[in-house]
Amino acid sequence: MKWKRSERLVDMTQHLLENPHKLIPLTLFSERYSAAKSSISEDLTIVKETLEGRQTGQLMTVSGASGGVKYIPKTGEETIREVMSLLMEELKHSDRLLPGGYLFMTDLLGNPHIMDQVGKVFASAFAEKDIDVIMTMATKGIPIAHAIARHLNVPVVIVRRDSKVTEGPTVSINYVSGSTKRIQTMVLSKRSMKSGQKVLITDDFMKAGGTMIGMKNLLEEFGCELGGIAVLVEANQPEELLVEDYQSLIKLQSVNEKDRTIELKEGNYFSEGGM
Amino acid sequence: MKWKRSERLVDMTQHLLENPHKLIPLTLFSERYSAAKSSISEDLTIVKETLEGRQTGQLMTVSGASGGVKYIPKTGEETIREVMSLLMEELKHSDRLLPGGYLFMTDLLGNPHIMDQVGKVFASAFAEKDIDVIMTMATKGIPIAHAIARHLNVPVVIVRRDSKVTEGPTVSINYVSGSTKRIQTMVLSKRSMKSGQKVLITDDFMKAGGTMIGMKNLLEEFGCELGGIAVLVEANQPEELLVEDYQSLIKLQSVNEKDRTIELKEGNYFSEGGM
Repeated sequence: MKWKRSERLVDMTQHLLENPHKLIPLTLFSERYSAAKSSISEDLTIVKETLEGRQTGQLMTVSGASGGVKYIPKTGEETIREVMSLLMEELKHSDRLLPGGYLFMTDLLGNPHIMDQVGKVFASAFAEKDIDVIMTMATKGIPIAHAIARHLNVPVVIVRRDSKVTEGPTVSINYVSGSTKRIQTMVLSKRSMKSGQKVLITDDFMKAGGTMIGMKNLLEEFGCELGGIAVLVEANQPEELLVEDYQSLIKLQSVNEKDRTIELKEGNYFSEGGM
Repeated sequence: MKWKRSERLVDMTQHLLENPHKLIPLTLFSERYSAAKSSISEDLTIVKETLEGRQTGQLMTVSGASGGVKYIPKTGEETIREVMSLLMEELKHSDRLLPGGYLFMTDLLGNPHIMDQVGKVFASAFAEKDIDVIMTMATKGIPIAHAIARHLNVPVVIVRRDSKVTEGPTVSINYVSGSTKRIQTMVLSKRSMKSGQKVLITDDFMKAGGTMIGMKNLLEEFGCELGGIAVLVEANQPEELLVEDYQSLIKLQSVNEKDRTIELKEGNYFSEGGM
């Protein structure tokens, strides 16, 4: 069967989008479409220019015998600001206020389209950081971790508060919660990570950063390296933050439980080299 | 700026794939590309024929004033059998055996590419079932739930064992675990679902089905309706299963802890009308 260029472009775009950060040899496409490599190269130039022109992704070409093409999910600044605005618009409603100055965010974390956009935004920021693994804490960090992971094509490991038979042997550490100052435990399956891997930590909310420090200590127990920290919403902390090097999309500036008002602003995503 | 057809096809494919199960008016494309609706219709015919020819998705056209086009993620039978084979190949290794006849599956649940494929397979099966919400149990069901949700464009709600301040007011029920016969509690945020919604329940593993029955009772407390049950791996139960109407990808036929062998076969996906 002979494919037309127009059909090749549709199928190629789908194949690339479904396989981000994966090197695809040109021969895969030339065999799939029974087309010459020169035609495939021309197709890929069209895909590349379209994605990059609209800032919806990059196409990296690796030349040589083991070469090929790789789709790198990227989001333009304008779209990132739209995602931030959308999140602030959603989060500012007073009925999100919970006792203790917490915000109800479960619906946003359960919205796959919003999570997909958040995932692509963070995947853009860490695209060149050679992340091997994404680590998060059960339960609320999982949707964000998986959304980023899908765009970076790396596995997710989930830290739990207690060990389960289904996790096999585990490594556990104690840490001090930043806001409550209580000693807590976190547990991770021994099979989750290999020594030397570069780990991106993510979570939905960061207050003083105690959980982040805990996860950082845990990954060091595995002989792994911290590759970055990505937070959806950070609280405005009167005290000093326990972590310094992180990226957030939204900052919860203040919460007034009496007047039931919530003040939000953009997080440090752009200032911390998110772009 | 004037777009060429080749560029439109790439951008259109990306836009459709990033917005599954969402009606997109033709005017969105004709304005975006400064092109006549007749040209857009021709483009869409190419996209449709390519996706449907390769069985990687469907394009539904809705005519009339409020009409448009909708991308429906669909996976062909051949690809589904490949996903099943891949899972069986991975799961049969004896080092996955855990005490009590459980299998270590955490790495597969943490693999975003495998989860994406599993999500698309189940989304294909439930594409015409008008699912409003996907429900799962924390922690291990979450990656599958989000993977299906992204392809169906519906929210995920997460049932927990205990209530958290960040969930707001909750509804809780007691249920009897099918395998251990112990009474357990499950809790769901009151804001999660609205009466009358159709719910797809999913989980990574099903033994006797007690957790599924618990979730079914819980959704009935919300005045919701069961739309289906999707399970990654079902155990071979000597006793009668508590649920009847479910779809599984893999069946864990037998586990021999002494010889350390695992026997797997295809789940009931195809026989239960998965296609």
